[in-house]
Amino acid sequence: MLVKVFVTPRKGILDPQGRAVEQSLKSLGFGGVGAVRVGRYIVLELDVPNIDQAREAIRRMCDQLLTNPNIEDYTFEIEPGEGGPR
Amino acid sequence: MLVKVFVTPRKGILDPQGRAVEQSLKSLGFGGVGAVRVGRYIVLELDVPNIDQAREAIRRMCDQLLTNPNIEDYTFEIEPGEGGPR
Repeated sequence: MLVKVFVTPRKGILDPQGRAVEQSLKSLGFGGVGAVRVGRYIVLELDVPNIDQAREAIRRMCDQLLTNPNIEDYTFEIEPGEGGPR
Repeated sequence: MLVKVFVTPRKGILDPQGRAVEQSLKSLGFGGVGAVRVGRYIVLELDVPNIDQAREAIRRMCDQLLTNPNIEDYTFEIEPGEGGPR
C-alpha cells in the first residue's frame, strides 16, 4: 500500500517557517495570502496484510518517529496497491 | 480558499532524510516499510476571485519560492472556502 502522511504544526504553536514563507510571498507580490503553515509530507510503501494493520502501524510510526506529538498534528491516507485489499 | 501544496524530492534524486527515516523505522521494528520519501506540506489561505487565478498563483509561488524545480516535484489541492467559487 502507498501511505501518505501529512504533518502540520499544531494550531496555536508558533510556526516560524510558515511566517517566513508568508512574508516572502508577500514581498514577491502575491496578494491575498495568509495563514501559511509549513509541515512535512512523508510518503512510504507499506507491505502489511490489511488496511487495519496499516492504520495501526502508521499511528505507531507517527507517535514514535514521524511526528512530535507535543507540537504537531498529523493525518494520513492509505492507497491500496495493485490487487491489495481495500 | 484553502490551498494544500505537497512537495516531494524528485524521483531519482537522493533523499537522505527519507533514507534515514526508513532505517529508523526498520530499527524500531516496523516491517514491510520501503521507499520512504520526506517532503514538505504547505497549507495556506488564498483570497483570489476564482479558482483559475488560484491555480495560476500557486504555480508561480511554487516555481518562485515554495519548491526547488531542479530537484523537487509538487502537486496541490484547492478547497474553496465558505461561499467561495468552485
